[in-house]
Amino acid sequence: MSDLLKQLNSNPMTGWLAKSIGLPNPVTLARENGPYQPQPFSGKRALLVSTTNGYLEAPLRELLEAADAEILRADELAEQERIDMLVVDGSGCQSPGDYTALYERLHPIVRRIATNGRVLLLAPHPEEAANAVASGVARGLEGFSRSLGKELGPRGITVNLAYVARNAGDRLDMLLRFFCGPQTAYVSGQAITVTAHTKSPAELPCEQLLAGKVALVTGAARGIGLSTAQRLRQEGAQVICLDIPAASEELERVAREMGAEALALDISAADAPAKLLEFVREQFGGVDILVHNAGITRDKTLGKMPEHFWQQVMQVNLEAIVAIDQALLDAQLIREHGRLVYLSSMSGVAGNFGQTNYATTKAALIGYVAALGPALAERGICANAVAPGFIETAMTDAMPFVTREAGRRLNSLKQGGQPRDVAELVCFLSSPGAYGVNGNTIRVCGQGLIGA
Amino acid sequence: MSDLLKQLNSNPMTGWLAKSIGLPNPVTLARENGPYQPQPFSGKRALLVSTTNGYLEAPLRELLEAADAEILRADELAEQERIDMLVVDGSGCQSPGDYTALYERLHPIVRRIATNGRVLLLAPHPEEAANAVASGVARGLEGFSRSLGKELGPRGITVNLAYVARNAGDRLDMLLRFFCGPQTAYVSGQAITVTAHTKSPAELPCEQLLAGKVALVTGAARGIGLSTAQRLRQEGAQVICLDIPAASEELERVAREMGAEALALDISAADAPAKLLEFVREQFGGVDILVHNAGITRDKTLGKMPEHFWQQVMQVNLEAIVAIDQALLDAQLIREHGRLVYLSSMSGVAGNFGQTNYATTKAALIGYVAALGPALAERGICANAVAPGFIETAMTDAMPFVTREAGRRLNSLKQGGQPRDVAELVCFLSSPGAYGVNGNTIRVCGQGLIGA
Repeated sequence: MSDLLKQLNSNPMTGWLAKSIGLPNPVTLARENGPYQPQPFSGKRALLVSTTNGYLEAPLRELLEAADAEILRADELAEQERIDMLVVDGSGCQSPGDYTALYERLHPIVRRIATNGRVLLLAPHPEEAANAVASGVARGLEGFSRSLGKELGPRGITVNLAYVARNAGDRLDMLLRFFCGPQTAYVSGQAITVTAHTKSPAELPCEQLLAGKVALVTGAARGIGLSTAQRLRQEGAQVICLDIPAASEELERVAREMGAEALALDISAADAPAKLLEFVREQFGGVDILVHNAGITRDKTLGKMPEHFWQQVMQVNLEAIVAIDQALLDAQLIREHGRLVYLSSMSGVAGNFGQTNYATTKAALIGYVAALGPALAERGICANAVAPGFIETAMTDAMPFVTREAGRRLNSLKQGGQPRDVAELVCFLSSPGAYGVNGNTIRVCGQGLIGA
Repeated sequence: MSDLLKQLNSNPMTGWLAKSIGLPNPVTLARENGPYQPQPFSGKRALLVSTTNGYLEAPLRELLEAADAEILRADELAEQERIDMLVVDGSGCQSPGDYTALYERLHPIVRRIATNGRVLLLAPHPEEAANAVASGVARGLEGFSRSLGKELGPRGITVNLAYVARNAGDRLDMLLRFFCGPQTAYVSGQAITVTAHTKSPAELPCEQLLAGKVALVTGAARGIGLSTAQRLRQEGAQVICLDIPAASEELERVAREMGAEALALDISAADAPAKLLEFVREQFGGVDILVHNAGITRDKTLGKMPEHFWQQVMQVNLEAIVAIDQALLDAQLIREHGRLVYLSSMSGVAGNFGQTNYATTKAALIGYVAALGPALAERGICANAVAPGFIETAMTDAMPFVTREAGRRLNSLKQGGQPRDVAELVCFLSSPGAYGVNGNTIRVCGQGLIGA
């Protein structure tokens, strides 16, 4: 603990700040640097519990076994025995009385979950519920899950919920691997919707997930974009790293190091979509994965914002994206089972002081994927957005100490995330196995306190 | 400013806390104690601006004139002239280029908005958009609105957005009166959906909104419930104040003082729905407005929570509500054009540490109204939820100083709300004119920082 924070903590008046920023030092999150393994849960102890009338327990058990988890029984847990992952089949929750089982099953074992453990709760899709009560009961599980995330987060445990449509019960393998694996170290308190409307891919690989795929990442010279390009490459994708010409030296270097193509292009230029289209068509014949990561901020309150601040943000963060998508989609250069991933932001979710321009574009992406994903579902294409919270980058390193500490700590995990954490979420959404997840916006924020 | 906070502020290390809790003292919010007036905007200066192709400007102008607002022209504003309300018709926003007008119209005048002013932004309904881009552009306005709320909030200005379905343009009168009036002093940063699916009432009164209506409020002996009962009474409703038998003395007193009926009943008792049904049928023949305000907390982390904590919260906050609704709806005792309003909570939106039980019930209400409202729309019945943030009550008075200050200040208005602020929102949702708002959950939290 820093001396400054010790001092802060010792004063009763400032103890609140110290407490809220989560002293003492946060738990070290367990991350992995490698790609997905075919049996990722080897040596991991899993508990699978079901509330009344759940219909997902059997398939979940099969998937956990295939991933080589050791499946424990709650009533046979040895004293002090720890659980690495807890999967809760809440698919049968239809009336308030069904919540009782949730309490009864979880209360005795929730303190047994190991540091850096995972909790995944499966809920019915509220829109498919038989009546308003059942719809409410399904939605209530989100309040439960988010509260549990806040309770368990300080121990590095992430808690997420998936609303699973009735016909999507066979689309949970990759979901389970991601949300119960080390890849989801900084994704917590999220509610994901899994639907059956997207055409299934022919193959669902468990390793080298992206072998044979072509991935294009914008803003790939550094930070989150770079980490994402590296992560996709690691799963076997051919990667095109795109960034502005001013960054071309850095871009060439990082691309060479990871064995990727470099493409220096200002995406906001009028001829960028045509140039990109030509490049993709000639060099690769199409792309499977398109990650719209490039983005800029030009912060000012609206009354003081010069017009070019407004326009530049609109151009780079929204207009360029829409133009590129349209060009590639019209030319059929986004292949069947393609994956479109967009970098939104906490500002897009909650709005932010001084960011009317930025938040407008980032909120627009949330609505855009929600409509675009379902529209492309019959071609097997998924469109999802990712909203990072406080991620440790050169930008956040430059913040004043207290602002930075507060930003870092105001989440359930009491620490900032790494670019790799965002890359993992993008990688998951880019994988063939994520075909049930389409139109979602998922935060990677350690369950940040701030929201809408 | 308190000496303690001064001390906090003077230390550079703790300046962040002081800044985040919004010193110096927040602006005094302009509230009214009276009922709605037929011409509520007399003496108020309004600016009505429209982005490209907006189709709501003409009806909005009529409504503002009918409410007696003085409608100014942006290009004729005298130097130093202040605007009391800004209404932005964004209904034509379909492409990223349409955002330009938003900047051009608002940038020059946003600093002219008076302290305690109001901003209401009308947006197209994203689900009705012609394509994914238009859907995204509509959704982007929410990021804009929430950001603007954070910029203007410290001056007591509230900023809200309404997604207006194409056929619901004639349902904006009451919406405008509420969101541009003093009634919305503590509602900010919200996105409301206005649809055309609910059957219209025969009359849309502009004063004594609830004359001839029967309203039942649970938990009405004190706090938010009491304030709500008083507010509904003030608009001319016959009011039934319900609370537990243990509070019957207080209940009798407050009911007598406001000219209401008192009904002492434990809603979680097995025979409560039957007793309530009988009372309503015999005394009033039915109810028009039902406000499910009663609720309890029994906080503990899940691992330490005794079973009766879980069950009591489920019973009072969810099971009782569902049972009462079912009894009254089955017996046709909720009259046509009825209004059902449910008290949810920030915990239901975001989850909360130590509140797995409470947050489950409060999140369930969010899903419940979203399904129940549309299901009852053909009978003209609306179901909506209200999620209060930090509201000044006896409970919050008992908090430790710093916790209380932080809770109070972590919102755009930098202060806590009053029970009356919640009552105003419930009153709006209970009014005949709110027939476009059905299935929504609206926060009354001064645009609280905390969310999901």
